[in-house]
Amino acid sequence: MPPQIVALVGRPDSGKTTMLEKLIPALNRRGYRIGTVKHHVHRFEMDREGKDTWRHKQAGAHVVALSSPTGLGVIRDVDHDQAIEELIERYYYDVDLVIAEGYKSTGLPKIELFRRAAHATPLENRDRTWVAMISDSKPIKDLTHFGLTDIEEIADFLITNFIDQPHRPATTMLVDGKPVALNSFVESFIGRAVGGMTASLKGCRNAREITITIRTGPDDAKR
Amino acid sequence: MPPQIVALVGRPDSGKTTMLEKLIPALNRRGYRIGTVKHHVHRFEMDREGKDTWRHKQAGAHVVALSSPTGLGVIRDVDHDQAIEELIERYYYDVDLVIAEGYKSTGLPKIELFRRAAHATPLENRDRTWVAMISDSKPIKDLTHFGLTDIEEIADFLITNFIDQPHRPATTMLVDGKPVALNSFVESFIGRAVGGMTASLKGCRNAREITITIRTGPDDAKR
Repeated sequence: MPPQIVALVGRPDSGKTTMLEKLIPALNRRGYRIGTVKHHVHRFEMDREGKDTWRHKQAGAHVVALSSPTGLGVIRDVDHDQAIEELIERYYYDVDLVIAEGYKSTGLPKIELFRRAAHATPLENRDRTWVAMISDSKPIKDLTHFGLTDIEEIADFLITNFIDQPHRPATTMLVDGKPVALNSFVESFIGRAVGGMTASLKGCRNAREITITIRTGPDDAKR
Repeated sequence: MPPQIVALVGRPDSGKTTMLEKLIPALNRRGYRIGTVKHHVHRFEMDREGKDTWRHKQAGAHVVALSSPTGLGVIRDVDHDQAIEELIERYYYDVDLVIAEGYKSTGLPKIELFRRAAHATPLENRDRTWVAMISDSKPIKDLTHFGLTDIEEIADFLITNFIDQPHRPATTMLVDGKPVALNSFVESFIGRAVGGMTASLKGCRNAREITITIRTGPDDAKR
């Protein structure tokens, strides 16, 4: 953890959401938990008009949440476009794979969906981050190809390349909300030192995950 | 941080959401960011039917998010009713005060809203966690009282008692997602040790907040 991210890209109306509606159940059937992220460039409304949380948000709440025994919804203001890595670190701590819809201008590995029935050509800016093409067209040289109905094969591809990875970092660090790269020495050093410091604390025995947050700057509660 | 939490309680239809619609703007005008949480005992739908994120969730995604430059919405499955402290630690890291609607069976400090126009009596289980009553009735002995229109006075009370606090913990720890109480020695020890370890890392100079997550158990990505 955090889970890996793969972006499903393609021109508008190439059928990305419809493809996800088939891929997610196929991955679920194999026992994997999937998260999705969609990027939106404008203001959006996610809540249902008139609900209490909607009214709180309209009144000016910065964060609203609706919590139940089976589900949780959180809607919040942000002051900048969140880096997808930041979102994943904070909100996707218990999923096996995150599929981003869109995010084609990022360095994420990408699978393109191209339907000749809908568009004349695939996206034009294809680069080395493209790992596969799903299309009703013929395969492109040197790029893994799947047909539009090869759902089980696409699921296999995702599992092999983005879930069953030998090494996932055991220690991660966010500084002011952004992930900091740790080399393996630093990762191991911090992990062991903090693990050792906290091992004797009540509630920390047999812990599987410990998260510590340290605030070093002045507290600017008032803005 | 994390921010303090106060629960606004009262019988159904006592006007809690309407009160929040007045209180939140009053606190915003004074420069404070407010978060709200509402508890719901049944399954709920927060997203708008037919939207892409709604379709992802229907297809079985464990977490879905919609991210934009001004707002973020996250809707997820959970396998148990989240402790409010857990929600606050994870999702309300940048607000000054959280007002919970409901949560009357918790140990949170409570402000009750009672309208004689709507009900004959206030809640029956009033205990030492009650800190104030907002009502159209006469004051109750030994309990701070506000009238229904005393919005500015209620805002003052919240700021004085739940925002402008001298000590807020600088170091917090979550173990397997649950907050662990740290006494001031341990808090200071861990904060300084981790701060010292990370101070020389690239990206950590002038950090205001450092979050480290250590996973000590076996990785059970496959469920």
